Amino acid sequence: MPKINLQVNAARLQADFEALSAIGRTPAGGVDRPALSPAHLQARQWFHQQALTAGLEFAVDSAGNHSAVLRSEHPHARTLLLGSHLDSVPDGGRYDGALGVLAALEVLRTIQEAGLQLPVHLEAIDFTDEEGTLIGLLGSAALAGALHAEQLQAPRGGRERLLEGLQRASLTERGLLAAQRDPNTLTGYLELHIEQGPRLIKAGAQIGVVTGIVGIASYQLTFTGRADHAGTTPLADRLDAAQGAASFIVHARQRVMGDFPGCVANVGWMRFEPGAFNIVPAAARLGMEYRAAEASTFEYLGQALLGLAEQEATQLGLGLEVQPLGTHQPAPMDARLQKAICQSAEALGLSHIQLPSGAGHDAQMLAAICPAAMIFIPSQGGASHSPREFSEWQDCLNGANVLLQTTLRMINIGI
Amino acid sequence: MPKINLQVNAARLQADFEALSAIGRTPAGGVDRPALSPAHLQARQWFHQQALTAGLEFAVDSAGNHSAVLRSEHPHARTLLLGSHLDSVPDGGRYDGALGVLAALEVLRTIQEAGLQLPVHLEAIDFTDEEGTLIGLLGSAALAGALHAEQLQAPRGGRERLLEGLQRASLTERGLLAAQRDPNTLTGYLELHIEQGPRLIKAGAQIGVVTGIVGIASYQLTFTGRADHAGTTPLADRLDAAQGAASFIVHARQRVMGDFPGCVANVGWMRFEPGAFNIVPAAARLGMEYRAAEASTFEYLGQALLGLAEQEATQLGLGLEVQPLGTHQPAPMDARLQKAICQSAEALGLSHIQLPSGAGHDAQMLAAICPAAMIFIPSQGGASHSPREFSEWQDCLNGANVLLQTTLRMINIGI
Repeated sequence: MPKINLQVNAARLQADFEALSAIGRTPAGGVDRPALSPAHLQARQWFHQQALTAGLEFAVDSAGNHSAVLRSEHPHARTLLLGSHLDSVPDGGRYDGALGVLAALEVLRTIQEAGLQLPVHLEAIDFTDEEGTLIGLLGSAALAGALHAEQLQAPRGGRERLLEGLQRASLTERGLLAAQRDPNTLTGYLELHIEQGPRLIKAGAQIGVVTGIVGIASYQLTFTGRADHAGTTPLADRLDAAQGAASFIVHARQRVMGDFPGCVANVGWMRFEPGAFNIVPAAARLGMEYRAAEASTFEYLGQALLGLAEQEATQLGLGLEVQPLGTHQPAPMDARLQKAICQSAEALGLSHIQLPSGAGHDAQMLAAICPAAMIFIPSQGGASHSPREFSEWQDCLNGANVLLQTTLRMINIGI
Repeated sequence: MPKINLQVNAARLQADFEALSAIGRTPAGGVDRPALSPAHLQARQWFHQQALTAGLEFAVDSAGNHSAVLRSEHPHARTLLLGSHLDSVPDGGRYDGALGVLAALEVLRTIQEAGLQLPVHLEAIDFTDEEGTLIGLLGSAALAGALHAEQLQAPRGGRERLLEGLQRASLTERGLLAAQRDPNTLTGYLELHIEQGPRLIKAGAQIGVVTGIVGIASYQLTFTGRADHAGTTPLADRLDAAQGAASFIVHARQRVMGDFPGCVANVGWMRFEPGAFNIVPAAARLGMEYRAAEASTFEYLGQALLGLAEQEATQLGLGLEVQPLGTHQPAPMDARLQKAICQSAEALGLSHIQLPSGAGHDAQMLAAICPAAMIFIPSQGGASHSPREFSEWQDCLNGANVLLQTTLRMINIGI
């Protein structure tokens, strides 16, 4: 198996990483490349140039996804996608997304240089707006046929910002909605990414094999009571909406930690109405999300949290309004791809664990149309979406080599 | 004791109440007479006219406090003040403040008609801005010499609104600060008011004898943790500021109910930072106030609540910032005046209980410079600062007669 000894060109990959990190660099040492911003478009331009320099084909689809392509000579070859994204959150870090695109490009160059016969086309793809400055998972959703016209009307980053970005990138809404790719042309999708959490470091593992991408459900919960004079109304006579919301926050954490190991919930914002020092809150509104990697757990977790909110309200004589604000179902990663990642890590002598991804990724969109999997490398301090984001260079290199080896295995086993 | 049989003129008092309730009336049946608004000034004009019609003297001091006066013939007579306020909160009720001023006026008319020899001047006073549309307890603080120039610079209702109101009422800041009255000229202060809470109704009592006006302390508490990705950071690894704030809200209520009977605390507003669904709150700021009627209890209550906040923060590894936002010390009511109120109620065959006032009143300012006391009557449903505010007419009348009888007792015992 001579291919197993193939390694990416570490110096070239590192030079690429440094060059890309300079685009949109922030004073704190991170990058600021929101989707379709001038800095982001400059990064894409740089990627295009690197692909051409390497003698790869280059393509941009109507959702703005940028691809370097290493073609198979087979006339009816399908495509194995390797990728991630070059956009960042505002004031973000250098690794999130960028590492995956650079490693994909490097895998193509390494295989190209090895002169291997390819049974599939290899495509290193940079997806548009993964981070959600505009919509989130925009390019991958468009490619997977999961983007709908309504999403373009009320984008998370505001309609004006979306239209400005599309114009800057010479894209159109019509193009976004027409970017669906025929799933039959795809053999799979592999993505290398930093973990964005502390689990690999804690476990002392070098590689994370992602079992699935968590489902996420968001809700606005409103506990309703009665506004009363906070001086003249005895505590026992109050219908204090704040008590319901506060008790929910405390008990939701206890419940998830006790009964749903590995799952998370967050109350990220809250406000009381009318909101004065001397008035008992008549309403307490809060924004809650929860995440679980496994479909039935995701369902039970939602039932448990909404049931708890109902129970807290009832116990205190309060009302409860439940407003669902969107759900992404859990996206399990392909079992054969996971196995190939494990085997690749083992062949390279790298310790590895399996773990779910608590964050969303383009891979969850791809998982709906083809086998998809993700490779994680350790994030120092678990920092994410921050200039503090940092991974050891050896870990980055390990990840790129696992991506290369997994790609080679996939070619051999021909999924 | 023929005076004991003296009663106020019920029909005249009720006609006054109806006439006054028409000034600033709202569609919901309440009144909207914020301090120094046109409706409030109209109510004061009406009060002035009623005093003149009754043949009483009339005076306005430089803080805008309006007084009807029934003079003693003694050359060096001091003054017994009876009063309350004619301003209301925005969209308020008909009874709060108004009843006390009308009853005071009616007591003067009744005593005038009885032709009694007065050892003191009797003064029915309407204080400026009790409710705090501008500053709160403004007229009574000015009269008591407790108003300071700094308060005029940053008034609670905004500086512009204060200046507009003063101009509308032909008042000046200099006048406000010069309105202090010589305490040696005052023998005491009596105020009739609705309870604004449910205690009298619950106790089945017709009259409340106020033991003291609660102290109020306000704080901003900020629990500080760390912003983390709400998907990738395990619950056990978070420094979630919301957990500290929520646990404080739940346990503060339990603590006050368990260890501080009769006291209250309220968290009336709260916000999380940065305040996004998918970010663990790095900070949770909340507005907390607590109230207690007795000085040492007030102090212990404050220690207990701030200690609890510190404890919650420590247990969760969070920081805590404590920002005091102002304190009114408890104002005990005069014991002799309380006794006179009890005796008057008994003489009239009215059931009564002693209770603290959970709300602030002009009487707390007067208590600093002369003996002061308050008479409460039942509030149906405990409603306050709302068009739903309602007291049975018989209760209003009972209150006015207790005010009359207490005044007569005070004159006899010559405090």
